[in-house]
Amino acid sequence: MIKIAVDAMGGDYAPKEQIEGAMLAIKNIPDIEITLYGESLKIAPYLTSKERITIVESDYVIDMGEKNPIKAIKDHPNSSMALALGSLRKQENDAVVSSGATQALIAGAHILVRRMPGFKRTAIAPMIPSIDGRGTILLDAGGNLDIRPEHMLQQAYFAAVYAKEVLGRVEPVVGLINIGTEDGKGRELDKEVFQIFKETKLFKFYGNVEPKSVMNPPCDILISDGFTANIVMKTMEGVAKGMGEMLKRELKSSFFGKLGALMAKNNLKQFKKSMSPEEIGGAMIYGLYAPVIKAQGASKAYGFYNAIRQAANVVRSEVYPKVAKYVMETSEQLNHEE
Amino acid sequence: MIKIAVDAMGGDYAPKEQIEGAMLAIKNIPDIEITLYGESLKIAPYLTSKERITIVESDYVIDMGEKNPIKAIKDHPNSSMALALGSLRKQENDAVVSSGATQALIAGAHILVRRMPGFKRTAIAPMIPSIDGRGTILLDAGGNLDIRPEHMLQQAYFAAVYAKEVLGRVEPVVGLINIGTEDGKGRELDKEVFQIFKETKLFKFYGNVEPKSVMNPPCDILISDGFTANIVMKTMEGVAKGMGEMLKRELKSSFFGKLGALMAKNNLKQFKKSMSPEEIGGAMIYGLYAPVIKAQGASKAYGFYNAIRQAANVVRSEVYPKVAKYVMETSEQLNHEE
Repeated sequence: MIKIAVDAMGGDYAPKEQIEGAMLAIKNIPDIEITLYGESLKIAPYLTSKERITIVESDYVIDMGEKNPIKAIKDHPNSSMALALGSLRKQENDAVVSSGATQALIAGAHILVRRMPGFKRTAIAPMIPSIDGRGTILLDAGGNLDIRPEHMLQQAYFAAVYAKEVLGRVEPVVGLINIGTEDGKGRELDKEVFQIFKETKLFKFYGNVEPKSVMNPPCDILISDGFTANIVMKTMEGVAKGMGEMLKRELKSSFFGKLGALMAKNNLKQFKKSMSPEEIGGAMIYGLYAPVIKAQGASKAYGFYNAIRQAANVVRSEVYPKVAKYVMETSEQLNHEE
Repeated sequence: MIKIAVDAMGGDYAPKEQIEGAMLAIKNIPDIEITLYGESLKIAPYLTSKERITIVESDYVIDMGEKNPIKAIKDHPNSSMALALGSLRKQENDAVVSSGATQALIAGAHILVRRMPGFKRTAIAPMIPSIDGRGTILLDAGGNLDIRPEHMLQQAYFAAVYAKEVLGRVEPVVGLINIGTEDGKGRELDKEVFQIFKETKLFKFYGNVEPKSVMNPPCDILISDGFTANIVMKTMEGVAKGMGEMLKRELKSSFFGKLGALMAKNNLKQFKKSMSPEEIGGAMIYGLYAPVIKAQGASKAYGFYNAIRQAANVVRSEVYPKVAKYVMETSEQLNHEE
């Protein structure tokens, strides 16, 4: 049995959507057990079954807008998030899924789960949609603002291994997000990263990639510093939402528009689905001792279910032991390249 | 008569689309004269009329992928771009429109047009589409990678004046692009800019804006450093293109999809138009002695025509004299705030 720890209280619509997502997961994934960390009184109304479900009582929820995430995690070891994360290190669970505050989850993961030996800086890696439907790994969408090129090398390497082992990409290619495709473009950081990536033998490097091709990139993995990649991710989200609203409004603006939309109802639904973060699932935190999946803060049941499914897939295919082995074996090379 | 200098040779589809765009402009805008800078032999095939058109011979085109833009401009004073830019300072023309290499145009503008007195750093400011159809000014989409907060103050101020005078926004609001909406988010630069903007009386400051709301921002102007804003612009372009392709494919995938698309043909066309850079026109370079408009490198005739129309509007409404007056009057305040 794969054991998944669920932070039942983190998220904009917690605990309702989290519990409903967990119920979906239990129903559809036969080889998992779920431990829900949260207030049992608030969880109970949404619990349709107790099969393969354990509840661990928690009396505190870390706020979604938490300003001081490190302090919050340290001051509240009994919070749903801290309890879920802490269970990994004690080997009570195999993976954590949370839609709680991103920065708190990162801080908590560092303090309570800790890094994979030899891994310098963790990264948040969501999958972003691509035209071909395969999706692209985006790094580092979460945290590190003051990143160094050698950290980015490790992150890209982790992503390449993940892409190969979990996503089945035969020879994963890494692209550097930049303002131009030519060599020598960008800030000092970008130029240094370009040079290191060009020389490495750890993965195949495409070169600079402009976000003009963010949805049909010539690579499996797109990487930049934490600020830039986060801006890319949020711009994608904003444009997808904005275009969706504009399309809807346009189709509603005339009789033939409405009729056409009615005809093409299923197609439009499928189109919407292909751009939905709910469909794509949660972001992985790379470089930890065990998998921690950050589901969207605004996750609904289906999105949260997908994040649980993703966690189960990662555990089932033994990604972390494989990656840890790779990292150990190559850490000498990594250290050398630094 | 408003005199527009057109770089006939710069752009992915030059000179064809540029000349056709100029022909459209002459036809639709009665109070303009256009001087075409380029090779008359290559221009001739697309010239349907010679009314209010002058051709100035040029024997060099600056390459779209020019690696050393400053050198290119200095070495080729007879290039179509350099000749067009040079005509501004000689007061032979009122504005320049070019879809040539961005960095060369910026470099050329600095060398040949020069800055507005008192203005520290020019900026490239495209309009990006918004859900309400009004559009948002994006700064600095072009060049300055090593920007200082006081430069960004001037740029935001220029944008605010432009928004008021040309776009008719009563009290333009400035928003700082950031990875979170809370105070204190982002890199050191973002924190410093936030502080300066919060204290200024030059314009209304909203605070941090996440690109999640890039298409319905709580402001008229979105600003960041040249790298970040360029990434935002290109991500928008990439997602718009990607989503357009996905929608098309989805609608073509079934009988009802095709039928619906046929019914809603005009609506889908209008939707496509609202996201098109062609529709939105060129980007302004702020802070120069006279208006220089950068049309998209991939401009087709209609997009290039729109950029010429934009140039004419800026000249007709006397934006630059007004802005220069504002800058002069407030330069003491600006200097003080530095």
